[in-house]
Amino acid sequence: MARRYEQLKAVSLDEPKDESMRAPNRTTSLRLGLSFILVLLLASLTIIQVRPSTSDSKFGFGVTETLADGTGYDEDIKICASNIPSPARPPAPINPWASLTIDEMVEIQNWLSSAQMNLNLTRGDSAQPSDNSVYMIQAYYPPKADVLKYFLSLDPRDAPARFARVTIHHGGAVEPVIRDYLVGPLPVTPATEMTHLTDIYHTETLPYNARGYDALDWNLPEISTKIAAPLMDAYKASGLPNETIVAGGAGPFGFDGSFRRFWLNWQRDTPGFWLHPLNLWQYVDVSGTDPSKWNQLKIVYNHQVFDTAESFMEAFRNGTLKRVPPVTKQEEDLSWSTRERIGALRDLDNLPGPRSVSFAGLRFRIDHDLQYVSWMGWGLYLGFDRDMGLNLWDIRFRGERIIYELKPQEALAQYTGNDPYKSSTALLDSYFGMGQSVRDLLPGYDCPDEAIYLPATTFSATGMMTRKRAICIFEQDSGRPISRHLGFERSEFGAVKGYQLVIRSVATVGNYDYLLVPQRVIFFLHAGPSLKFEYIFHIDGTIEVRVSASGYLLSGFWDDEQGAYGSKIWNTTLGSLHDHVINFKVDLDVGGTQNSLLKTSLSQEVVTQPWFDDDWGEEVIQQKITREYIDNEDGALLRFPTNFQGGYTIVNTDETNKWGIPRGYAIHPGYSPVHNTVVGSKRLLKNANWARYNLAVSRRKDTEPSSSSMWNFNLPGAPPVDFHNFFDGENITQQDLVTWINVGMHHLPASEDVPNTRTNTAASSFFLTPFNYFDYDVSIESSNAILLQPPKKPGDPFSYDDYNVRPAHCVPRPPAAFEYYPEQVYDLDGKPAPASTVEEMRKASELYLRIKFEL
Amino acid sequence: MARRYEQLKAVSLDEPKDESMRAPNRTTSLRLGLSFILVLLLASLTIIQVRPSTSDSKFGFGVTETLADGTGYDEDIKICASNIPSPARPPAPINPWASLTIDEMVEIQNWLSSAQMNLNLTRGDSAQPSDNSVYMIQAYYPPKADVLKYFLSLDPRDAPARFARVTIHHGGAVEPVIRDYLVGPLPVTPATEMTHLTDIYHTETLPYNARGYDALDWNLPEISTKIAAPLMDAYKASGLPNETIVAGGAGPFGFDGSFRRFWLNWQRDTPGFWLHPLNLWQYVDVSGTDPSKWNQLKIVYNHQVFDTAESFMEAFRNGTLKRVPPVTKQEEDLSWSTRERIGALRDLDNLPGPRSVSFAGLRFRIDHDLQYVSWMGWGLYLGFDRDMGLNLWDIRFRGERIIYELKPQEALAQYTGNDPYKSSTALLDSYFGMGQSVRDLLPGYDCPDEAIYLPATTFSATGMMTRKRAICIFEQDSGRPISRHLGFERSEFGAVKGYQLVIRSVATVGNYDYLLVPQRVIFFLHAGPSLKFEYIFHIDGTIEVRVSASGYLLSGFWDDEQGAYGSKIWNTTLGSLHDHVINFKVDLDVGGTQNSLLKTSLSQEVVTQPWFDDDWGEEVIQQKITREYIDNEDGALLRFPTNFQGGYTIVNTDETNKWGIPRGYAIHPGYSPVHNTVVGSKRLLKNANWARYNLAVSRRKDTEPSSSSMWNFNLPGAPPVDFHNFFDGENITQQDLVTWINVGMHHLPASEDVPNTRTNTAASSFFLTPFNYFDYDVSIESSNAILLQPPKKPGDPFSYDDYNVRPAHCVPRPPAAFEYYPEQVYDLDGKPAPASTVEEMRKASELYLRIKFEL
Repeated sequence: MARRYEQLKAVSLDEPKDESMRAPNRTTSLRLGLSFILVLLLASLTIIQVRPSTSDSKFGFGVTETLADGTGYDEDIKICASNIPSPARPPAPINPWASLTIDEMVEIQNWLSSAQMNLNLTRGDSAQPSDNSVYMIQAYYPPKADVLKYFLSLDPRDAPARFARVTIHHGGAVEPVIRDYLVGPLPVTPATEMTHLTDIYHTETLPYNARGYDALDWNLPEISTKIAAPLMDAYKASGLPNETIVAGGAGPFGFDGSFRRFWLNWQRDTPGFWLHPLNLWQYVDVSGTDPSKWNQLKIVYNHQVFDTAESFMEAFRNGTLKRVPPVTKQEEDLSWSTRERIGALRDLDNLPGPRSVSFAGLRFRIDHDLQYVSWMGWGLYLGFDRDMGLNLWDIRFRGERIIYELKPQEALAQYTGNDPYKSSTALLDSYFGMGQSVRDLLPGYDCPDEAIYLPATTFSATGMMTRKRAICIFEQDSGRPISRHLGFERSEFGAVKGYQLVIRSVATVGNYDYLLVPQRVIFFLHAGPSLKFEYIFHIDGTIEVRVSASGYLLSGFWDDEQGAYGSKIWNTTLGSLHDHVINFKVDLDVGGTQNSLLKTSLSQEVVTQPWFDDDWGEEVIQQKITREYIDNEDGALLRFPTNFQGGYTIVNTDETNKWGIPRGYAIHPGYSPVHNTVVGSKRLLKNANWARYNLAVSRRKDTEPSSSSMWNFNLPGAPPVDFHNFFDGENITQQDLVTWINVGMHHLPASEDVPNTRTNTAASSFFLTPFNYFDYDVSIESSNAILLQPPKKPGDPFSYDDYNVRPAHCVPRPPAAFEYYPEQVYDLDGKPAPASTVEEMRKASELYLRIKFEL
Repeated sequence: MARRYEQLKAVSLDEPKDESMRAPNRTTSLRLGLSFILVLLLASLTIIQVRPSTSDSKFGFGVTETLADGTGYDEDIKICASNIPSPARPPAPINPWASLTIDEMVEIQNWLSSAQMNLNLTRGDSAQPSDNSVYMIQAYYPPKADVLKYFLSLDPRDAPARFARVTIHHGGAVEPVIRDYLVGPLPVTPATEMTHLTDIYHTETLPYNARGYDALDWNLPEISTKIAAPLMDAYKASGLPNETIVAGGAGPFGFDGSFRRFWLNWQRDTPGFWLHPLNLWQYVDVSGTDPSKWNQLKIVYNHQVFDTAESFMEAFRNGTLKRVPPVTKQEEDLSWSTRERIGALRDLDNLPGPRSVSFAGLRFRIDHDLQYVSWMGWGLYLGFDRDMGLNLWDIRFRGERIIYELKPQEALAQYTGNDPYKSSTALLDSYFGMGQSVRDLLPGYDCPDEAIYLPATTFSATGMMTRKRAICIFEQDSGRPISRHLGFERSEFGAVKGYQLVIRSVATVGNYDYLLVPQRVIFFLHAGPSLKFEYIFHIDGTIEVRVSASGYLLSGFWDDEQGAYGSKIWNTTLGSLHDHVINFKVDLDVGGTQNSLLKTSLSQEVVTQPWFDDDWGEEVIQQKITREYIDNEDGALLRFPTNFQGGYTIVNTDETNKWGIPRGYAIHPGYSPVHNTVVGSKRLLKNANWARYNLAVSRRKDTEPSSSSMWNFNLPGAPPVDFHNFFDGENITQQDLVTWINVGMHHLPASEDVPNTRTNTAASSFFLTPFNYFDYDVSIESSNAILLQPPKKPGDPFSYDDYNVRPAHCVPRPPAAFEYYPEQVYDLDGKPAPASTVEEMRKASELYLRIKFEL
């Protein structure tokens, strides 16, 4: 398809390519208008599908527009090159980290359900807690050694076998349990096996009370009958804008698997309901598989504690309940928590702002099927998983692999407060499925107009989902040169433009919530804050990893006892203090897999020098560098030094640059380089130990694929992955290493977090940057650069070399009209599950996790 | 001029404005070509200057191009709006901080030279150290109270009187001294007076040995005769690519004014000579005004120390000198230190990258004469001074003054090493004149193509200089929304685009250097590293202040004893470790001038709550906030807390937001929030105490205008401005406060600093961001935003409101051809001083600071 348009381009550009990009001359001939006619002609040609003769090789006529300042310019103005990226040339014809296709997932699902497997499975879209059902199916990434071997040989026989990871909720077992399995090789053949996947965990079992987040548990009357129904009168008297209230649930649900309990936080049902707490909480026990045993343990309202619904309702009815003050007139307008535009129009804001256009065509390449991207010497594969979404693999720069794996691991959000909800909430979002929560990006808003989008598909217990625009890729001009200098010697003066390639995805983190209408309970997956993950590639070999947050706060009820836990952001709303910490796995391979960890420290020394014997005195107080190799994992749980006096570099001591220095990549802190504040909380006792540091370095192992797991959230006391277990005294000198790096933010909300947090200050990042990796700065290779020489004659301008790269001038392709469709949803058989009603559509969009049931 | 083009626009857009920006529809009518004809017609009209009848109101015909994918689009394509910014509406018809014009400087110079003044002045372009001469003339900023009074009344009679600050080198006095004077009111009338300006300093005198950097001192044979001539044979034997060597000088030149001495660092004369040290240093005493007494104190070569040229040359000749190994064949190619493009062309790098275009016209306004800029509710005046260049004044947002003054104060570069040069260098760049060193930006490279440029004019002792493109201003799309959310409730789902306005200037910091040809000595101002200052305005009220560095390192000679002081970056070159710290004055006025300093701390607490009596236990370990007003300057010398657990906010306790919280602006750290490493160095003893902290807050006083002064550099033991003196126990509760904020970088060089440091990691920044200043996030006011609602019918797209702002589609104005001219130079009489030869031109470009003289 792109090719046909390229033909047009070939015609209109039948003159040498350089010509099409040449800067305008200062002439006054009349060229512009006739060029337009020419473009008309060419446009017509595309319609009638005639390939014109290429003998019309010169389009030198045109017209000049006289500019307002009396000067003129002339133009050979053409339609710009296609904005479809050129095909890429991946290093291999497969993506070893490709997600499973819908067909593959259906095939596995069918195989698991077959009689021979004897798993006694109930379909996930109808299973009860006491049933066996498939919770997850997704690609299991191959061993690194297999991939490296294949990339070296490119022999199809070396292609890594394809495996799936399957999670089954064994609710029907005598001792209900969760199990992870490896299924493969794929496709399913008689050789395909299912083996218990245990060697990536530090615990023997995955207790059933810690099981995956599953709406189906709630598709049972017990919840509303026992918990919600008795409080109806109290709910209704809470000062509501309508006949509905909404609950958000806290977590973790348990400590060590012995129970499954959580607090519900009731809120008004209004847009932005996260900001409308009612000062009412209920503590619910949903342990075990028998819903008849589920119950409510406690009710807290306006700082008063009740053990039963009866005692609470008694106080409510007899007037002893200390009530929240009634809703004021002012509080009746709840539109402040919507995203509707308000306020006066800013000057000239009726105009669209500047827009980035690749007038000469996109400069990055994409293999859409393999999800491979290349740009300016960079090349990498994309992967996508349920837990954390987008991940990057086999990142090479100028022909050398720099990173084998770059993958977000876990996102912690730890709250505080003096209500039961905030003080017991420490979310680990991989549990909710950050990848599963990714939805289409908003073209032109989440990513620039000319961004290219790639899809992602994930499995859930109730169906599968494909988003067409899960990931966006675009080149951007950073707006500043990556290097520049002004000098008067030969070839000292010039600049290299700071272009960047951005790969981005936005996950709107799943939390979960109740929406309770007095007539029915609706349970659904809700969209909380959006985390924007972006990977920014620079032309010098630097990668910037940046996470920014937006979306609604989780709030608390404001009263004067809340000052220590946040800020008042509305009459009755507290913006709650919390920490975000997000962990990345960075498997740097610096000149090969054998690497070491170099710690550099900057400190102060006092020295005397023989040449300092004048008035200044012999003593000099100055800075000095101490370099130290950290040779054991036990010493590699790291924080950035005070005042950032030093840092950490992954180096290869067997590979030196031209100057004899071990080649390295430095971990350079960016925005908000923080770790978490609170250590020792029982609700985060051992399940997120990675969050205590800025970074850590351990031996890379296929059995330590991740610093966390989706099971960690509900098992702080007995986590399947205890990050500290990675650090077991092993030597890390010239070994295959992984660097675990955190970004984060201490989020002390302010009124400006309403309606949504702003991404400019709610951002954290780090850089991976060459540090004696090359012999010099390779961004000097760029021909999007200029080099100036002083003139030879006074009065003349500086002469310059722009390497024949000048701004292209042409008629850009029109931006596509905005449109946004819901994601494509499939049932467990892989059949499209088109919605029959809007309610159904929303249900599908919400992953079938919203379920109504009558009281 | 713009108006004529606007007429064209008015014609072509004779349909409603919204239409011109509407997104294309999916129709298949034929509109494109005829639209081009229309554009041709309009283009012709501009040539013949006929204003067409506006009755041709409908241009609905066109042609459709069939796209490669078989779909079509239609377009009414027009020439884009002018890229000349619209006129601004400054709050007052004057800029109280405007630089002096050339005429004003000449007038003052003449007045100073008049007989009545009896100053016995020698013209600066011919003065000797023992003469009296004018060193500097520049605008002296008016008292804040005067300006505020005027801005309130806008009565021309209240306009602040205009004053100049004049520096005179009284070399002819019995006790030579420097004096600063205030001259005014301006223009010169009989009422004009000259008064001694002393109340901004903490010392009684400005010792003559600490005087301004002045090439004329060196226009004397003593230097070369005594220092350079005796060593000629040694220089020549140093393994040179030619018959020239270059010296860079270290500083400070003195401690307390009792002497003026420095080390010369000899380098090969080749492009990028900063990277080519010879391992040879000479220590020179130039104290006093009598050049016949100047002499050399020491020579250090390859770690060997000599007290005289004779003893050094004796060792050189008799073979006892331990020589640097001879130059190898490999070392003969010195092109590695140029900025010439090398290496293979990257894939598609023959094409220009994406370019930002304001298709609908620029959205910022500029008053070119007043140097006033406005954008999206922001408005501010620009100033420009010799010491530090660009500064910003009266920054208002949505009608309220947020910052009275935002001005860089000083830039410290502190080196280390085990040679006499690096270990004695602690540069304070205001001495060299960071503003004076600003040169024209490179259009399209330093700033995007459609940036708008503003000029700057400065005075030097030998002439005046105007650069036409000293400052650039542009709007950019940050590429990410400032806020966004995905939600399914009404008006929860949407995004606001993250546009920014950038105001930028690049100072190529003056250091100074000798260029010594065996036949002559050339003394000149040299271009060292470039510091890019930029101020980035966000639509939510946030200002980002960012400094990035590029350019050549100051290097040392590499041998194995250098490891503690940097990295080897070439055979014989050490990339020297150094700290950059740059101080900004931020005079925030939050809701008025009376403000307080709020310190917020985040820590851990253990609490018990009545509702936590289940399996989890009663105890909760969680985060808490402590808020504290720092009420005295003595407590306001501040560092960011460990792990950034807390921060600092300037608030107004008398002005609260809607929720009763004192309105505030937070100082939010950005990239590399560091202070200097070394404390106590004699060469920085008391003259840069601001560099010890991340920030500090003091009472604002007209007598404490700056944290430094150009005299501080050479007076570390007795600085005219001792920052610590600002902190003298005064109360800072609800007072007019100044926040002094540092950015910086510990620069441990690597091979990738060759040829020039990269701006991506050599960057430091801070944010000033509203913190409970507003009642909500005001960026929601933007109409460059989208709001989505779920569809009403399954299968339909989401409906949306884009506030009628869509990407404009039109034929952009062609980018201007690149050109670069030297700055405009004037002599002390204000007459253009056009160059007669290229040598003269370069001299002028180098501010007449390069002087040759024969040996």
